[in-house]
Amino acid sequence: MVQREALLKDAKPGDRLKIKKDEETYEGVLMPIHRFSGEDIITLKLDNGYNVGIKADKNTEVELIRKSEEEAKRKEKKIDIDESKSTISILGTGGTIASYVEYRTGAVHPAQTADDLLFSNPEIAERCRPKVEVLFSKLSEEMRPEDWVTIADRVIELFQEGSEGVIISHGTDTMGYTAAALSFLLEGLSKPVVLVGSQRSSDRPSSDAHLNLLAAVEMAKSDHPGVYVVMHESMSDKKCAVHKGTKVRKMHTSRRDAFESINDEPVGFVDPETGEVDIEERPKKGEDENIKRKGSMEEKVSLLYANPGLTEEDIKHARSKEGIVIAGTGLGHMPTDLIPALEEIIDEGLPVVMTSQCLYGTVNGHVYSAGRELKEAGVIFAGDMLPETAMVKLMWALTLDEDVEKVMKQNIAGEYTERRIR
Amino acid sequence: MVQREALLKDAKPGDRLKIKKDEETYEGVLMPIHRFSGEDIITLKLDNGYNVGIKADKNTEVELIRKSEEEAKRKEKKIDIDESKSTISILGTGGTIASYVEYRTGAVHPAQTADDLLFSNPEIAERCRPKVEVLFSKLSEEMRPEDWVTIADRVIELFQEGSEGVIISHGTDTMGYTAAALSFLLEGLSKPVVLVGSQRSSDRPSSDAHLNLLAAVEMAKSDHPGVYVVMHESMSDKKCAVHKGTKVRKMHTSRRDAFESINDEPVGFVDPETGEVDIEERPKKGEDENIKRKGSMEEKVSLLYANPGLTEEDIKHARSKEGIVIAGTGLGHMPTDLIPALEEIIDEGLPVVMTSQCLYGTVNGHVYSAGRELKEAGVIFAGDMLPETAMVKLMWALTLDEDVEKVMKQNIAGEYTERRIR
Repeated sequence: MVQREALLKDAKPGDRLKIKKDEETYEGVLMPIHRFSGEDIITLKLDNGYNVGIKADKNTEVELIRKSEEEAKRKEKKIDIDESKSTISILGTGGTIASYVEYRTGAVHPAQTADDLLFSNPEIAERCRPKVEVLFSKLSEEMRPEDWVTIADRVIELFQEGSEGVIISHGTDTMGYTAAALSFLLEGLSKPVVLVGSQRSSDRPSSDAHLNLLAAVEMAKSDHPGVYVVMHESMSDKKCAVHKGTKVRKMHTSRRDAFESINDEPVGFVDPETGEVDIEERPKKGEDENIKRKGSMEEKVSLLYANPGLTEEDIKHARSKEGIVIAGTGLGHMPTDLIPALEEIIDEGLPVVMTSQCLYGTVNGHVYSAGRELKEAGVIFAGDMLPETAMVKLMWALTLDEDVEKVMKQNIAGEYTERRIR
Repeated sequence: MVQREALLKDAKPGDRLKIKKDEETYEGVLMPIHRFSGEDIITLKLDNGYNVGIKADKNTEVELIRKSEEEAKRKEKKIDIDESKSTISILGTGGTIASYVEYRTGAVHPAQTADDLLFSNPEIAERCRPKVEVLFSKLSEEMRPEDWVTIADRVIELFQEGSEGVIISHGTDTMGYTAAALSFLLEGLSKPVVLVGSQRSSDRPSSDAHLNLLAAVEMAKSDHPGVYVVMHESMSDKKCAVHKGTKVRKMHTSRRDAFESINDEPVGFVDPETGEVDIEERPKKGEDENIKRKGSMEEKVSLLYANPGLTEEDIKHARSKEGIVIAGTGLGHMPTDLIPALEEIIDEGLPVVMTSQCLYGTVNGHVYSAGRELKEAGVIFAGDMLPETAMVKLMWALTLDEDVEKVMKQNIAGEYTERRIR
């Protein structure tokens, strides 16, 4: 086996190298060794922002072009911002998409400035006038409902300051929850808000960060108002899917095409290379003068997973909350002996919303007697709404001065479809 | 519009009719009007067990062949049981698959006897020597862990009494939970146990009950020991999929092809018409002398759905349980500020198991710091196990006199796969 170390000699992450292997020549910046890369994989970041993983073997030649210090100086001079292009804000909240390889040390950091981001993704400056800021740097699983409100407020300011579109870079774990929250919180939205993340961090050869970000830029420049999630559509790099913020779910722990629209088609697709945006007919971008935040988020809502082990105590525990969303079985069921306990809670004024753990399809309180009992007990059946979206929506509905059931049954941002005939 | 009632005149459900429409002629037993059928749909049960829905229009002719009383008498004489065929037990637990149209009254009842079932599905008697019994008649959502133990015990007796295979008819809502439970409870299983249900009740024109049941019979006759779920593979009636009992999940509220193998391929397929069973290489059927029930079910296990609204109180509530399964976000995460509360519970001796709400993919406690913290706190990462399967397995593991973590990490019935490289 060829030792990667022997080939690289004194080259350090951040150094600019030229690597020849077989018929191919690659020139780019050496990335740090990633713990999930194979033992002899050398990762270069090419000038267009792509990472490439090269398997070192006896036919591999490595040539040092520039040490990292000099490379960093040249990079700093190279990026021109075209002031005539659309202003797109890129709001960092954490996650790995906007991480940046510091050329001096080779360490990977979250992008803190426009420069950081542009060094990693120089193509962005060719496509828009980027305005980058880091709102906070949180792991996706650390995101709390109050953070959604903070993000919403900053998005509104960015539009008021003249952005044509806002991109939110976000960890993928709870990106669907945040997308749903912004869909409800942002009232009068007339421009695109695009959440984007990466399933493989940007220092890995297989990273999807670069292409997802380019696709997000194109969507943010488009004239389709709304809150969207833009991520790889398949394992291939050829297109990214644009999902409605209320209908999207992370359906795989690690694949690049983990995000899927549930009970809905993606709104459209973006080719990250050509920049082509192929979107169904949607309302056109308008003026953003009316954008404002509607409501806030009541954190005390529980998401209860119905199952054969669920007990009366589990239901009673929910008394400490302001509302409950149940991910029921099938068409929206739960153990029937628990219905009286649920009814008591509803009588005390707690809204209880029913969704399905099947994820696909729609709940229906009319088909079976158990459903009818739940409906009679006052449970709100939430159609084909995702359990997570229903939870976020209930958190929001509880902060409005409106009838909660009426709000839950109303289609605000494409989250709710009336029962469809199949 | 043509009135269905005018066409049917005095015909009652249970009567044998001949209906001509356009070029087609249908002969069969009139089914009750179903509330979900269109206004002018007449449903006939044909002699082969299929239901057909015929839209009544001005070209439709209805002829009475026999009144229900006479039809019932003829039916009773018609079914011959071939004593030389394999004995297949059909154990009713509820659900709509084994419902039976009483020819005298036209009412739909759960099948209580072999005769009931055979009148509805005469083809079964051509394929095996059926032994039908109704263990109980519960809605799927009423099924509790103690019921899984009751079913397991009866399955063991049926094998000891000479059955070659056991079919369990079951409501679809929690069929996956029951299938997982039987996979763990039945030790030394050397013959097939097949769970089957229907997404559309057997009095509806679109019912999948008949074909699913035929496919289940073929699988139960096969020489592949194990616990399986057999249901429609697609919207078409051409094949049914055979799913491993620990890897299957109801993924749609109403479609006939709602059941999917997650993180696994179906074990194989059955053509319900031809009876052809196409199964991957598996252990062959053996003697059942060693079959016995291993362990039981500890009901006090909670299934916690990680989300941005989860609180310390939710974690503390779990103290009243004997174990917790978390459906974490992404690779198996939860809000990190809750880890200390979780650690306290683990220190008190409660096992905590991590799965992913993504459903697809595998949890991994090594990739991100949050995962490492959870691992250090003592959380058991359950690989690619479904959250529901992990819950059932933990209920079972808690009743064994063995180390719970060791049991959870061990592959008992195909539920657990070591981390796969993608």
